[in-house]
Order: sequence, then structure tokens, then C-alpha cells
Amino acid sequence: MLASLPRPLGLVPTMGAIHAGHLSLVDRARAECATIVASIFVNPLQFGPSEDFERYPRAFESDCSQLEVRGVRIVYAPAVDVMYPAGFDTHVDVGDVASRYEGALRPGHFRGVATVCLKLFNAIGPDAVYFGQKDAQQCAVVGAMLRDFDLPIRMVTCPTVREPDGLALSSRNVYLSEEERAAAPSLYAALSAIRDAISSGERSRESAIALGRAKLVAPAKEAYLDIVDPTTFAPRDPVVPPCTVIGSVWLGTTRILDNIPIA
Amino acid sequence: MLASLPRPLGLVPTMGAIHAGHLSLVDRARAECATIVASIFVNPLQFGPSEDFERYPRAFESDCSQLEVRGVRIVYAPAVDVMYPAGFDTHVDVGDVASRYEGALRPGHFRGVATVCLKLFNAIGPDAVYFGQKDAQQCAVVGAMLRDFDLPIRMVTCPTVREPDGLALSSRNVYLSEEERAAAPSLYAALSAIRDAISSGERSRESAIALGRAKLVAPAKEAYLDIVDPTTFAPRDPVVPPCTVIGSVWLGTTRILDNIPIA
Repeated sequence: MLASLPRPLGLVPTMGAIHAGHLSLVDRARAECATIVASIFVNPLQFGPSEDFERYPRAFESDCSQLEVRGVRIVYAPAVDVMYPAGFDTHVDVGDVASRYEGALRPGHFRGVATVCLKLFNAIGPDAVYFGQKDAQQCAVVGAMLRDFDLPIRMVTCPTVREPDGLALSSRNVYLSEEERAAAPSLYAALSAIRDAISSGERSRESAIALGRAKLVAPAKEAYLDIVDPTTFAPRDPVVPPCTVIGSVWLGTTRILDNIPIA
Repeated sequence: MLASLPRPLGLVPTMGAIHAGHLSLVDRARAECATIVASIFVNPLQFGPSEDFERYPRAFESDCSQLEVRGVRIVYAPAVDVMYPAGFDTHVDVGDVASRYEGALRPGHFRGVATVCLKLFNAIGPDAVYFGQKDAQQCAVVGAMLRDFDLPIRMVTCPTVREPDGLALSSRNVYLSEEERAAAPSLYAALSAIRDAISSGERSRESAIALGRAKLVAPAKEAYLDIVDPTTFAPRDPVVPPCTVIGSVWLGTTRILDNIPIA
């Protein structure tokens, strides 16, 4: 707990490989907080055995430089065996909000996310934490944890930062081949089509999703497209705002995800 | 978080039905803290469906009087639906320390204990929390959670308070019939015999436990007797201090438990 630093204290939790999306969180934190702490920790607990923990991009020096330029004075970057020493054995058991979509495709992922977030929050003692809307289900899971565990922490969700062609920034975009990169924006196009249909009064979940599905461009292959309650991540049917249009596509062995909230 | 109260702030979590054991925790907290908060909450999450949640003794007015006399100025006694509102769905997943003994006899019990403790700790923000050695496995589970979740809270374990005949104080002792009450101290006698054997150099777990078992008096019926590591609650075999001699007996439909730590 960083008790003697100027308050409010804002925490921006990251896995490093800092991009403009992370920096937008820092900017928001700087506008609201007297002290900004960023954490950089590639959390093994949230990767499945066949996932990309080992090859996940790491760029510690460059990350620190970028964060410092934007006003971050403290970076918390613990070693894995400091975070999870021998005997570590207590976890956060996330509820139904974590059961579908990313939770179903990545068993144990949100358990790992929630556990590391709780540890970071307890170690640092922030007044506010900053997350990207891009990982909407993560926001819902962490929000549920904050509420259910009575944590006196304000959660701030910041808008998704996109490439000019609509692709949401992600540290995993570097995995994409040229062909995959070219097809990647069709996910945002699909989500936008669903959003537009809902805005125009479409209330059938199936019909709205079908309109989006038609926008996907090969080799993008649907992992899921849906319209959900932003808090519970249960499917919304019939579609009634507020809701979140969520989607994920496979591009080769890489899977990307995105979403559009509708107020 | 009770941010404006004099520090250090000590929390004594209870389920009410205050007895001299609870008051000894308050006394210890008063010696160490500028502010003492006691919580009174009969936590449904830590009772099994066939357990005694409904008939668990409740005495709120008398509890508050007793706590006030000993220096408690704040009692936190939330209603069940304040603690667990609709949609509550995040829990603490306790590890192997919770798997045996009380954890095996009461599936879900320690998950409920750890979850409510984390909520109480987050809501109140104590510097120190006070638990009774009587519930040794609970102390180990909560201690593991504090450590694994990086909670900046000191845990203080206070010695078990006993009746003159050795029976550990417990709110559940009121359930015992006259005959059961007469046999109840044989649990402490059994644990003491095991402790004496270890102190005299006995290193065989089986032999030490057999000596204790012989002390049990009908109708007391063994639920478990064992010698464990005080932190992991794994059986210690051969017996090497530090260890904790633990035991539990059935007396009719009531089960009592006790332990003796060996440094």
C-alpha cells in the first residue's frame, strides 16, 4: 500500500507491450489523479497451457520510457515468483459474468485476471483503476469483483483506441500476417453494422447478428458475435439498450476481439 | 473504509453470541489499537444446507453491551441482503489448506469464511484483525488469503479460552445436553495427551494419536484427531514441531472442535 503518496492515486494495470490504448488510460488517470502507478506484469495465471504466454510481446525498457513521458512516475513490475511464490494457493472465483465468450474460449482466464488484479489492487492501494473498453468482459468481471468484494476503488473504463481503418489496438496485432491484418478491420465493420441495426430499431438479436456476420472478410473466421448486457454479459434478446455488441474472430492462429457499447 | 478514525484500527470479526473468547480478542485489540471495530454477522455462506444457520444463537443487544463495556465503539452488523445483494457472484477460492478436516466435513465452509472475511476487511480497512486459535484451520485459511492476496493487514491469533474443566469456549456449547457437556472436556484431554506424547519425544503420528483417542469419553465420537503443519494443515508424519494437534468430536448432533499448538 503506497500510503504516503499524493492522492488520489490511479493505477493503470498492463501486461506491457505498451501502445496508444494503454497511453490513453494513463492520460485519463493523469487528468484525475495526483499520482499514477502503472503495473507491467505478464500474468501466467491468465494464460492457458496452449496460449501465448511465452511469446507474448515484452518490451520493458521501451514501455517504461513511453509511460514516463506520459507522466507515470512509478512502475510496478514484479517477477513472477514474487507475485506467485511457492505455496501460493488462493484465487478469485469469478461468477457467471465470466462463463461465456472469452471465459468459455479461455478456461481459467478470468480467474487469473481477477486474482492478479486483486493482488495488484491490494499491493498498491489505488483510489481508481483504469481499464480499456476493448476488453469489455474483463471490465465486467473486474467490476463485479470490486462490487462483490466491497473494494473501495473506482473503476474507470476508457474508450477503445483504433487504427484509422477501425481495428482496435492490441498488443497481439503484431502476430497478424499482411493478409490477416487486411481482413482484421472487418470485425469492427461487423460490430458497427450490428450497432447501426440496433440504433435503427432492430430488436431481433438473430437478425442484427446476421447483418454483422455478413461483413466478416476471409480469412477472418467468427469465434463469436453477440449482443450482451454490459454488466452481466448475458445475451440480450430481444435487444434493448443499454447493451454491448461483442465479437471475436480467428485470423490464422491469432484471435482478436472488439466491442461497441450502446448506451 | 473507515479512513478518518484513529489508527491503528483493529477488527474483531464475530458471528455474535459473544462469550469470553471473543472478549479476549477485544482485549488484545484494545491493547494494540486506537480504534476497535467488531463485526457481528452470521454468515449464511459458511453454513451448509443441513447445518445450523437458522438456530445459530443470536443475541444482538446483549452482544453490543458486552462489546461496549470492553471498549468497542463501532459494531458493523450488516443485514444479509446488504452483504449479499442480488447478483452477488464472486467468491474466494481457498486452496489446499482448506481441503481437509473442517473443510472436508463442511464443504464450502472455508470458501464462505474467506469470502466474508475479505468483504469485511475491504469494507472496514483494518490494520490488524483478531482471530481465536480455537478455529486453527480458519486462522490458516485466512492467513493464506492475506498472504496470497497481498492484503496489508496484520493477523493476530489469540489463545483459546477454556472452561475450568478444559472445554474450549464456543457459541455452540449451548447445544450440548448435560450428558454431552460432561463428556465434552475429553476432547481437550485427548489433545493434551497427544501434546504430552510429542513433548516427551514421540515422533510416530499414529502412536501419538492413539494415545489421545483412548482419552475420549462416550458419547463423544471422534470426527478427527490429527497432528498438522500449522500453516498448510497437511498432516505431520513423522511428528516434528512446530505442529498443531487438532481434534473434533461428535456429541449427539453437535460437533465441537479444539486444538493445541506446539511451538
